[in-house]
Amino acid sequence: MPHRYFTTEIGGGKAALCGADAHHLARVMRAKLGDTVILCGENALEYTATITAFGEERVEFSVTEGLPSTAEPKVAVTVLAGYPKQDKLEQIIKHGVELGAVEFIPFFSRYCVAAPKKEDQKNVRYNRIALEAAKQSGRGIIPNVAMPILNFGALCRSLDAYDLVLLCYEGGGVPLRELLQSALAARADAGTVAEAVATDAAAPLNTAEQTAVSPSPLKIALITGAEGGFSAGEVDAAMAAGAHIIGLGPRILRCETAPLAALSAIMAFTGDLE
Amino acid sequence: MPHRYFTTEIGGGKAALCGADAHHLARVMRAKLGDTVILCGENALEYTATITAFGEERVEFSVTEGLPSTAEPKVAVTVLAGYPKQDKLEQIIKHGVELGAVEFIPFFSRYCVAAPKKEDQKNVRYNRIALEAAKQSGRGIIPNVAMPILNFGALCRSLDAYDLVLLCYEGGGVPLRELLQSALAARADAGTVAEAVATDAAAPLNTAEQTAVSPSPLKIALITGAEGGFSAGEVDAAMAAGAHIIGLGPRILRCETAPLAALSAIMAFTGDLE
Repeated sequence: MPHRYFTTEIGGGKAALCGADAHHLARVMRAKLGDTVILCGENALEYTATITAFGEERVEFSVTEGLPSTAEPKVAVTVLAGYPKQDKLEQIIKHGVELGAVEFIPFFSRYCVAAPKKEDQKNVRYNRIALEAAKQSGRGIIPNVAMPILNFGALCRSLDAYDLVLLCYEGGGVPLRELLQSALAARADAGTVAEAVATDAAAPLNTAEQTAVSPSPLKIALITGAEGGFSAGEVDAAMAAGAHIIGLGPRILRCETAPLAALSAIMAFTGDLE
Repeated sequence: MPHRYFTTEIGGGKAALCGADAHHLARVMRAKLGDTVILCGENALEYTATITAFGEERVEFSVTEGLPSTAEPKVAVTVLAGYPKQDKLEQIIKHGVELGAVEFIPFFSRYCVAAPKKEDQKNVRYNRIALEAAKQSGRGIIPNVAMPILNFGALCRSLDAYDLVLLCYEGGGVPLRELLQSALAARADAGTVAEAVATDAAAPLNTAEQTAVSPSPLKIALITGAEGGFSAGEVDAAMAAGAHIIGLGPRILRCETAPLAALSAIMAFTGDLE
């Protein structure tokens, strides 16, 4: 499998890599003129790129027409994770990128044990972890890690941006599969598509036909708590802001396990994990 | 929520804890006569236990009738994990217990980078991790971590013990949901139950009606590779031994992520993650 690099320098049949990636390709991989790699550009487009020149910390390419990455899921999940202690946020980012999340937004809430500290520096490291995980897992985009939201009220005010908001909380509510089904059906222009999906248990929820009807991915916010969980008031505020409460079974999941289990379940139900 | 402890000393309306658990309850938690805890006995039975006496590193209880734990999933998944490097097996065990696996069996195969070393000592540690995760997540049983299987041939010869064998491999095959559906249908005495499930997309695959027909849980073997993955010969040998190949999507998952993603998907499809 050819190596993969992300770059923004693509256009007019040409492309370039510079800095650490150029160094890696030229010095570490010892690539030669005429070798091919995969370049990932903006909008999750992938290009087969042939090396045409080596410069000072720079490699130039001729590229084919960009094709949409096949690695991107049909749903765009933003993981909003209560800020945990130790290196758990790094684990959530690393594995969450593998599992197809498009963005990570940590937040502080009432029962968070962690407190904001040097978040500028930490954010640089978090985004480096996301980049490495995107390369390693073959993603078509580099998921972004946002700066933390400093309180739960601000988080609730940000939820209008999503088509479906899910908050993981003990006790649960409507099963995840039903919520996904309704949200996908609501987006489909023709009700008939959703109906066809609902009657076939073996079919993934977001079929090719449905994608044709609504090509932009369903935007999902997945909210999970830190070690201390949520206060009852926070749960009420999230529901008032449009969040649906989902449970993750009778077993108590750690705060670093819950977002990954919920992501896996979402991807399983939409056919993005097969 | 009362504290939970596992014990085998339960019978005739009485029970006891000794050793570290007794110390924890008496000294750390400073429990008093008449306080109640939850005791988990054999066969995933849970008892409400009232403290009747404190002895030397021993606590005695009167107990109610045992009730089946509600935390145990309807499927019994054994995770067979290719032996990974570093502390990744510990992560798989810790989070796999939270996600409802009943057993873990590490194995060595052709492309494993890790090699067997002091496995007796490591197995003691792995089982301690499983016990702690079982307590923390509220499981009704303590999942067992077996000694490693030393080669893939021996693993293949062990697969007769399962109702459904799944091997995670790039490329995939039949979707997981269809395999689970077929396996559950094959177990049901009456075909009508499975049919009813298949026509309702929103229903979890293993419904209460179905459980009534076949109360013993479906035994699933979930096989995932170490960092180096499987050789083509190993995949062929597993298929010859009855394994079904499942994919986990177009993204490349790390060897410690794959079993947890697959476990989450299985639990989501069987209604054990809601």
